[in-house]
Amino acid sequence: MIDLRSDTVTRPTPAMREAMASAEVGDDVYGEDPTVNRLEKEVAEVFGREASIFAPTGTMGNQIAIRLHTQHGQEVICEARSHVLDWEMAMMSAFSGCQARTVAAERGILTWQHIKPAIGAKIYYRAQTGMISLENTHNMAGGTVTPLPVLEEVWAGAREAGLPVHLDGARIFNAATALGLSVAKLTSGFDTVMFCLSKGLGAPVGSMLVGSRKAIEQARVYRKALGGGTRQAGVLAAAGLIALHEMSKRLHEDHANARLLAEAVAAEPTAAEIDLETVQTNIVIFKLRSKDQANGGDAAAFTATLKQKGVLVSAIGPHSVRFVTHYDVDRVACERAAAIVSEQLRLL
Amino acid sequence: MIDLRSDTVTRPTPAMREAMASAEVGDDVYGEDPTVNRLEKEVAEVFGREASIFAPTGTMGNQIAIRLHTQHGQEVICEARSHVLDWEMAMMSAFSGCQARTVAAERGILTWQHIKPAIGAKIYYRAQTGMISLENTHNMAGGTVTPLPVLEEVWAGAREAGLPVHLDGARIFNAATALGLSVAKLTSGFDTVMFCLSKGLGAPVGSMLVGSRKAIEQARVYRKALGGGTRQAGVLAAAGLIALHEMSKRLHEDHANARLLAEAVAAEPTAAEIDLETVQTNIVIFKLRSKDQANGGDAAAFTATLKQKGVLVSAIGPHSVRFVTHYDVDRVACERAAAIVSEQLRLL
Amino acid sequence: MIDLRSDTVTRPTPAMREAMASAEVGDDVYGEDPTVNRLEKEVAEVFGREASIFAPTGTMGNQIAIRLHTQHGQEVICEARSHVLDWEMAMMSAFSGCQARTVAAERGILTWQHIKPAIGAKIYYRAQTGMISLENTHNMAGGTVTPLPVLEEVWAGAREAGLPVHLDGARIFNAATALGLSVAKLTSGFDTVMFCLSKGLGAPVGSMLVGSRKAIEQARVYRKALGGGTRQAGVLAAAGLIALHEMSKRLHEDHANARLLAEAVAAEPTAAEIDLETVQTNIVIFKLRSKDQANGGDAAAFTATLKQKGVLVSAIGPHSVRFVTHYDVDRVACERAAAIVSEQLRLL
Amino acid sequence: MIDLRSDTVTRPTPAMREAMASAEVGDDVYGEDPTVNRLEKEVAEVFGREASIFAPTGTMGNQIAIRLHTQHGQEVICEARSHVLDWEMAMMSAFSGCQARTVAAERGILTWQHIKPAIGAKIYYRAQTGMISLENTHNMAGGTVTPLPVLEEVWAGAREAGLPVHLDGARIFNAATALGLSVAKLTSGFDTVMFCLSKGLGAPVGSMLVGSRKAIEQARVYRKALGGGTRQAGVLAAAGLIALHEMSKRLHEDHANARLLAEAVAAEPTAAEIDLETVQTNIVIFKLRSKDQANGGDAAAFTATLKQKGVLVSAIGPHSVRFVTHYDVDRVACERAAAIVSEQLRLL
Repeated sequence: MIDLRSDTVTRPTPAMREAMASAEVGDDVYGEDPTVNRLEKEVAEVFGREASIFAPTGTMGNQIAIRLHTQHGQEVICEARSHVLDWEMAMMSAFSGCQARTVAAERGILTWQHIKPAIGAKIYYRAQTGMISLENTHNMAGGTVTPLPVLEEVWAGAREAGLPVHLDGARIFNAATALGLSVAKLTSGFDTVMFCLSKGLGAPVGSMLVGSRKAIEQARVYRKALGGGTRQAGVLAAAGLIALHEMSKRLHEDHANARLLAEAVAAEPTAAEIDLETVQTNIVIFKLRSKDQANGGDAAAFTATLKQKGVLVSAIGPHSVRFVTHYDVDRVACERAAAIVSEQLRLL
Repeated sequence: MIDLRSDTVTRPTPAMREAMASAEVGDDVYGEDPTVNRLEKEVAEVFGREASIFAPTGTMGNQIAIRLHTQHGQEVICEARSHVLDWEMAMMSAFSGCQARTVAAERGILTWQHIKPAIGAKIYYRAQTGMISLENTHNMAGGTVTPLPVLEEVWAGAREAGLPVHLDGARIFNAATALGLSVAKLTSGFDTVMFCLSKGLGAPVGSMLVGSRKAIEQARVYRKALGGGTRQAGVLAAAGLIALHEMSKRLHEDHANARLLAEAVAAEPTAAEIDLETVQTNIVIFKLRSKDQANGGDAAAFTATLKQKGVLVSAIGPHSVRFVTHYDVDRVACERAAAIVSEQLRLL
Repeated sequence: MIDLRSDTVTRPTPAMREAMASAEVGDDVYGEDPTVNRLEKEVAEVFGREASIFAPTGTMGNQIAIRLHTQHGQEVICEARSHVLDWEMAMMSAFSGCQARTVAAERGILTWQHIKPAIGAKIYYRAQTGMISLENTHNMAGGTVTPLPVLEEVWAGAREAGLPVHLDGARIFNAATALGLSVAKLTSGFDTVMFCLSKGLGAPVGSMLVGSRKAIEQARVYRKALGGGTRQAGVLAAAGLIALHEMSKRLHEDHANARLLAEAVAAEPTAAEIDLETVQTNIVIFKLRSKDQANGGDAAAFTATLKQKGVLVSAIGPHSVRFVTHYDVDRVACERAAAIVSEQLRLL
Repeated sequence: MIDLRSDTVTRPTPAMREAMASAEVGDDVYGEDPTVNRLEKEVAEVFGREASIFAPTGTMGNQIAIRLHTQHGQEVICEARSHVLDWEMAMMSAFSGCQARTVAAERGILTWQHIKPAIGAKIYYRAQTGMISLENTHNMAGGTVTPLPVLEEVWAGAREAGLPVHLDGARIFNAATALGLSVAKLTSGFDTVMFCLSKGLGAPVGSMLVGSRKAIEQARVYRKALGGGTRQAGVLAAAGLIALHEMSKRLHEDHANARLLAEAVAAEPTAAEIDLETVQTNIVIFKLRSKDQANGGDAAAFTATLKQKGVLVSAIGPHSVRFVTHYDVDRVACERAAAIVSEQLRLL
């Protein structure tokens, strides 16, 4: 099977497995796991920040950040299709007691022009804005990249408005790769940044939250609360160190493979509709057309057909399909997948 | 001063004051206040339902309903400018732990076509939809009325989807007046209905939540939790009975006055932009134009000017102004207000 | 019926009814109700504080205070039988996300010696103490009074520990009457004080939260959230002003009546067990003995018998009975009740 | 260093490291990790239940269970020193909105006689009991074991009262070892059971929640919410399988070592006070005496002294010290530790 459902399916590399088996470990609740400590230190260095903390998942990292920056009864400004809204079990509300204030932004790129009018008026009988959350790359918009100047404007506006800004940077290394910038530069103005060691970087388990020493100290409290205070987490951190230093360098390969697949789709314009401009990283999202052009084609049926042919992809809407390229699907496999996709699109 | 900021400013009528002074009362936490009991019974009758419960405010009534119908971590489908979202302190999240799933609907009229795609997919790792909340009339859309056939379709769809539907009917008597229907008919398919005895009906304090016996029994629990378990509330219920039976009959006067004001605005198309179609009840919302037509006129400045001339209105956005007509502003006062508004619009 | 179940059953006096009927009112959400404003100002003066705010119930007042002083995930130190714990619907947890850290104290009198060891150790992986809550008089301990020196020690200890202290002073005027102190003196070291205009002071609806200007400003936010932002609340505040200024002066009568009843109970030591030392204000709590002395007598049965004889009282445990004296039960009625109680105890 | 602070410090065995390195893995959010699936199946078999689910920590497992069994605004009956209360960050309140209803029980053994009177009266204006939580072995009571007949009475009472019962069985294999019973028998009446693969069983990361298929299906939802939906968790499950099947068989060694240490303490009765009856598993708790006998000895100072001598232990109160024996401290090390402890106690 060629599994293009998500880069979350990546399995640990042999080097990671070896590192896990030999990792020096300790009790991380007591702050004594040397491998976790090393990972947290090196991540902070890579991002040019004071501190970072390991968390079992990106959801936990994001939700710790939301809890950190807000009070119950406030609002979180985020894009209308953002992961913190759509795929984190309403925890912004259920754990942090905050209401989403959503703005739909083209290609998921939230600008200061979107954000400013969404800030709550300073009236006592209205919920106040607590924070802003961005997502880069933006998953559901197709792995799109928010460029640095847009971010800089958001950072400046938020600073003036006195609002913290968090980045859901689950795939920030993909964004940095696409822009040819360091993650440090691309995230310098965020109060906190979450990114995943799993997903494209291939670690089996783990995400990191990066920020100031004070923020990360408080994050440790909320991580414990959420049940993320694991003990000998060094076994996971050992894989994470390889993800951080090695796997982050090869993401351009995934991007090239995504482009290959996207072009295969674009070559069948009567069957599928794709905006190639959105294919900037390792995600390809497109819409199936229907014969009558009224609605769209049946994504679930198409997904089932591809599965029979050996290609796993995701239906992310009634008519929308997503491919995600990653380490476990190499160029050859992507070429094969592209051929199968082309063939099946022609048959629609 | 002619106060058109909101119908919340209405003061109790002499009949209400007399009723409050002579009300028979008891301890309502023990269910022993005869006037509260009478109000709750008569409201249920008017709505053709099993039961109702008194609450100090519409916010409490709505938030009790949301708590009733949901579990923490679910989603509430509501219109993007709805009161439960914008003016209830994010309590859907802070108290019920639910996330809003918003849909922007023209004139605030949420149809089944809007709602259906907003229902969360039945995937375990996605927040599930807990309920649907409608608003009729819709305050921020300009007092617009959702007609019965639209409601019937929502009720049918929701029933099929197994989702409860609540009505924020703060001004449901205005909607019923506009449509020439009874509130019972206009709300028969909702699981719960909240409406306000204050606002257009003129009671000093109080709202009602209407529903099945079982729902209202549980509402009593949440009312106590929210601190709404008052003792000799019969003094308020006495005024509420007059609001229910007498004041609900005169709302067409407010509607006519709103129309008068709206036409005054419409007569100055270079200064203001108004969609007269939205003026269906006692609310008038319009946008000020700016000379350069690029943005809009300054609503705060216009509001301040009107205040100097003796007319209080609300700026509800940078360029938007709202008038609300009510019992304490009679025809003559509205005519005077209309003249002042016309004059000031011409001066812009 | 002689109703000794609670002082919550008091009905508004003729003077209160008259005041309600003629009260000058406005929209209190906009801060424009002159009678509410006057009440809030005069309460602050009586307590020697910067500000106060009206709330529909004592539960709302207490829960606003807990929300004010804490963060979700903290602990609230309180006595094991305190009202905030036992009779406020777990809202300290459900709304403020806080865990009670309870200490059982003799006669409900929480001292610094009780509190100090209950403060959470400063370890990141342990919930931290957010506040301390006292209750004076203490309802379930029998209306017992915490004397000033005990309070002073708590205030000093809490200040040193950096912890805010709230007073559930639902019946603080009873405590002040018993001690012959002003409420201002008796509450000067609390960060916030809640007291009830209803209960012994006889107003139909309403409680007050007293504190610094800043605290009360924030309380306004949480009051709105809880659905306590009523409109023409001046009708209730008018009664509250009479409660504050007039009714607070006559509480010694209720205390004398409670003593009368307590002594009637104490005179039947084979049937009932009472600690007369606990009868310090308007509450009498005692335990029924059983013939076999093994357990205790049946409080529910005894309560039912008294009801048949025209006296309403509360069973507050399997063997425990509570009387509460108040304005609506005068000396003569209490004498009659005492005679009936004596007679029935003798029949046990 | 001989580390007796906690059995949480255990490091993975060589067999576990080897298993982690070679584990077959998949995406567990999609339910596709074969090693996780195997672990969940085999745990269910060992406990004689329908299903189980992996969680990163015991805190997450317990808090998922509390969320499963309760509604916000309910009460959780638990022992006064229980882990769910004292060491889980108030999440019963912060995440599940529940209030603890605590009962202090000798040796932490909560019986039905303790529980029954703590169940909330069925009054609408009182928080209702949502569940009961037991802890076996009881950590802070000294690793004490609740015997089967006590449990059976609790199960029967709870069933009659319609209340779910959860077991915090972090160290249930220690209890089972002490009693010579299978964990299946010892937990058969609980609705859910949490136990730790880490702690005494030595896995680096991981706990399990066991219950009915329906409960565990819903647990998956809350695990995702809390951020516990990890991806290739099979690397951890592989170690967990060894913990489950191998390490659970050797706990009697830890118990014998604890006994050895306890007896060393008991041999110095002028310096320390220990109830040898409480030393039933792998935990030893005792109190230091002070020369003047008024208070107790300084636990922090004693802990620091032992550290200098190469023995790490925990001060768990001003005068209380805890030792926990485990796989990483063998008989020889325990003998050495006992000698050092004896020596230092004599020097006090």
